[in-house]
Amino acid sequence: MKLSVFDQMEMGVNKWEANSAVSDVSIRGILGMLNGLCDSDDRRAVIQLGHGDPSVFPCFRTSQIAEDAVVDAIRSGKFNSYAPSFGFPPARRAVAEFLSRDLPYTMSPDDIFLTVGCIQAIEIVVSALARPRANILLPRPGFPLYESHAALNSIEIRHFDLLPNKSWEVDLESVESLANENTVAIVIINPGNPCGTVFSYQHLLKIAETAKKLGICVVSDEVYGHIAFGNKPFVPMGVFGSIVPVVTLGSLSKRWIVPGWRIGWIGMNDRGGVLKQTKFVDKIKGIISVSSDPPTFVQAAIPKILAKTSKDFFNKFASILRQCSDICFNQLREIKCLSCPNKPDGSMFMMVQLHVSKLEDVIDDLDFCIKLAKEESVIVLPGFVLGLKGWLRITFAVDPSSLEEGMQRIKAFCNRHAKLH
Amino acid sequence: MKLSVFDQMEMGVNKWEANSAVSDVSIRGILGMLNGLCDSDDRRAVIQLGHGDPSVFPCFRTSQIAEDAVVDAIRSGKFNSYAPSFGFPPARRAVAEFLSRDLPYTMSPDDIFLTVGCIQAIEIVVSALARPRANILLPRPGFPLYESHAALNSIEIRHFDLLPNKSWEVDLESVESLANENTVAIVIINPGNPCGTVFSYQHLLKIAETAKKLGICVVSDEVYGHIAFGNKPFVPMGVFGSIVPVVTLGSLSKRWIVPGWRIGWIGMNDRGGVLKQTKFVDKIKGIISVSSDPPTFVQAAIPKILAKTSKDFFNKFASILRQCSDICFNQLREIKCLSCPNKPDGSMFMMVQLHVSKLEDVIDDLDFCIKLAKEESVIVLPGFVLGLKGWLRITFAVDPSSLEEGMQRIKAFCNRHAKLH
Repeated sequence: MKLSVFDQMEMGVNKWEANSAVSDVSIRGILGMLNGLCDSDDRRAVIQLGHGDPSVFPCFRTSQIAEDAVVDAIRSGKFNSYAPSFGFPPARRAVAEFLSRDLPYTMSPDDIFLTVGCIQAIEIVVSALARPRANILLPRPGFPLYESHAALNSIEIRHFDLLPNKSWEVDLESVESLANENTVAIVIINPGNPCGTVFSYQHLLKIAETAKKLGICVVSDEVYGHIAFGNKPFVPMGVFGSIVPVVTLGSLSKRWIVPGWRIGWIGMNDRGGVLKQTKFVDKIKGIISVSSDPPTFVQAAIPKILAKTSKDFFNKFASILRQCSDICFNQLREIKCLSCPNKPDGSMFMMVQLHVSKLEDVIDDLDFCIKLAKEESVIVLPGFVLGLKGWLRITFAVDPSSLEEGMQRIKAFCNRHAKLH
Repeated sequence: MKLSVFDQMEMGVNKWEANSAVSDVSIRGILGMLNGLCDSDDRRAVIQLGHGDPSVFPCFRTSQIAEDAVVDAIRSGKFNSYAPSFGFPPARRAVAEFLSRDLPYTMSPDDIFLTVGCIQAIEIVVSALARPRANILLPRPGFPLYESHAALNSIEIRHFDLLPNKSWEVDLESVESLANENTVAIVIINPGNPCGTVFSYQHLLKIAETAKKLGICVVSDEVYGHIAFGNKPFVPMGVFGSIVPVVTLGSLSKRWIVPGWRIGWIGMNDRGGVLKQTKFVDKIKGIISVSSDPPTFVQAAIPKILAKTSKDFFNKFASILRQCSDICFNQLREIKCLSCPNKPDGSMFMMVQLHVSKLEDVIDDLDFCIKLAKEESVIVLPGFVLGLKGWLRITFAVDPSSLEEGMQRIKAFCNRHAKLH
């Protein structure tokens, strides 16, 4: 067989190869690698504190109403067919109403596009922002899927810092200095992955005003929307949709604890009509029309899920997360080589600083995670994956007894490797 | 608000804008437009002969086993979580076993990647083929999503003809003359959309030998796999995976009549290991790792669906499709301005030639479809969308009574517009 073309493919630089460094450090890739390092002779269960998916634990089971709504949609036999490109109309209406509950205005169903989870929402929105010489402002620490899709679309990435000593708020001064005439958007993730922050109304207002000044839109990733169990209430960025165009990303995945259901949305909070005038919305439509849709029967279940899920379900979820966050934060206080500058108010994560100077034989965050996996069968995410070397992301959305044990193992690991004075 | 960036976005040429012509003629877009033209005063139901989704009709309900398998997976509460990137391992194994039933060798679960329907499989495979100066050989008539994704990835499109007078077989001579050192793949769709063909073993062998000679791989879109109700049996291209690397695309959507469930797969039929050696498989993995997955509970249902669906279900489906194809083909014989060169042996479609010279006031295929929608509330797809002007694609996968009525309306329309001699 003549392999010339394949040989060239191997040699050639295509857009995926050019960015292989990006996809190589995906969260999934690193977690898979760490899981592979766990000692198969260790009889203890592997404790996963690396990713935000508590659905495997019985205490984090989704609501009966959500489950019933999806089963009813399948059993009806009416939702086996393709859905319209932008989504099943009653579902778009339901999401618009759901988001409008927290806004000073009402969104239209036309402002909503249903997606295959928030992952596809990110893919579509970043693609739609692409243009020659464009750059995008991404948070550090952040969520690497934004970096991957920016790179795949040849959008230059400019990182602004989240400030650990200021409750992980956005460093707005650096945002202003980073932006130029080719900046297309600033991305925020609120409630925060990986920092567990919930931005205040005042801080969001400042972000909106900064974005307005710079003439860019805000992409507000609210996949953890309403998962706020601390003192700060969740405020959607769409509240400021009269000041600046806001593209809101959301999903059932986190709040309903069903990431495997693969349903999310893109919402246009754009009171000035800028995103329509500039044809950004048309681009979103063009991309969606050649992309795969979320499952129709899950779309069909959305109106019931959004309208009927009980407050008790959300309250119970928040209560367990608060308990878990307390466990994690309090245990960390007893570990000398780790410190957490901010107790989380939301999402499922906290960022923990690693002080390698207090350890005998640990080089950096990746080394810490590798040795921890090997010795204690505990998985945490090294911060370098999120753009912040020397830190760890710990997921506390794990059933409390597993979390207790996981933190005990981390403590034992740290004590064993502690530098002796 | 300073809109400079947005203004530039509007003016700028990004990859989506550059290809807006492609997405503007999407099947979905044209069908949506035609549906919008139907007369709201027409009390008759709109008859959809434009797209391949019979699931809306009770006679085309999916199998009870498939429905139960998905419901059981949801009710178990075990499949609300994220799935592994490449798919739930038992589902990958089940697809490998399912495809291997028709092959002279056994596929490994590692050869299978689960996707959000065949649409995402197309998106991922075409992206993975991209490299500078690449071109791809696509069938005419074809399925425009290939054109869209080739264009989005800057892959040059070269069309080879399917020959209506040779049972819509591939014009292999033109394939050889079109290919050059930058050709990366040839795409075939078998059973055929839009022509309703089922390629013979001998013809597939010739395609394999041609591709081998050209040093390119075959992308075999088998989304209509096994939907063969005529005299020719369905032969998967993977049978020739020892001759040439074959990338097989498939789905539950068509054969189980559940396009809304959004589950498909990419299979590597590559006995020579070429796709691995040339890192094509690594590229597929890289893309999948930053893409959204199919719903986990549908993945979990796959083993049961593939193993347990009864032959009766498939036989009944084939029997109705055969009946529908007969209705359509026989009715067409009575319409002078339309002719169908080949009675379909598979899939859900037939291509019908439009003889505008026999009509008084119809300019072309699009004009025919527009007037038919307006006057008779019947939707058929104009051939230009598929690359073949002057033709129509008619879906016969419609419940038989609707199909009868639809064909009667088409006949009435054609008689009314017939040129008087």
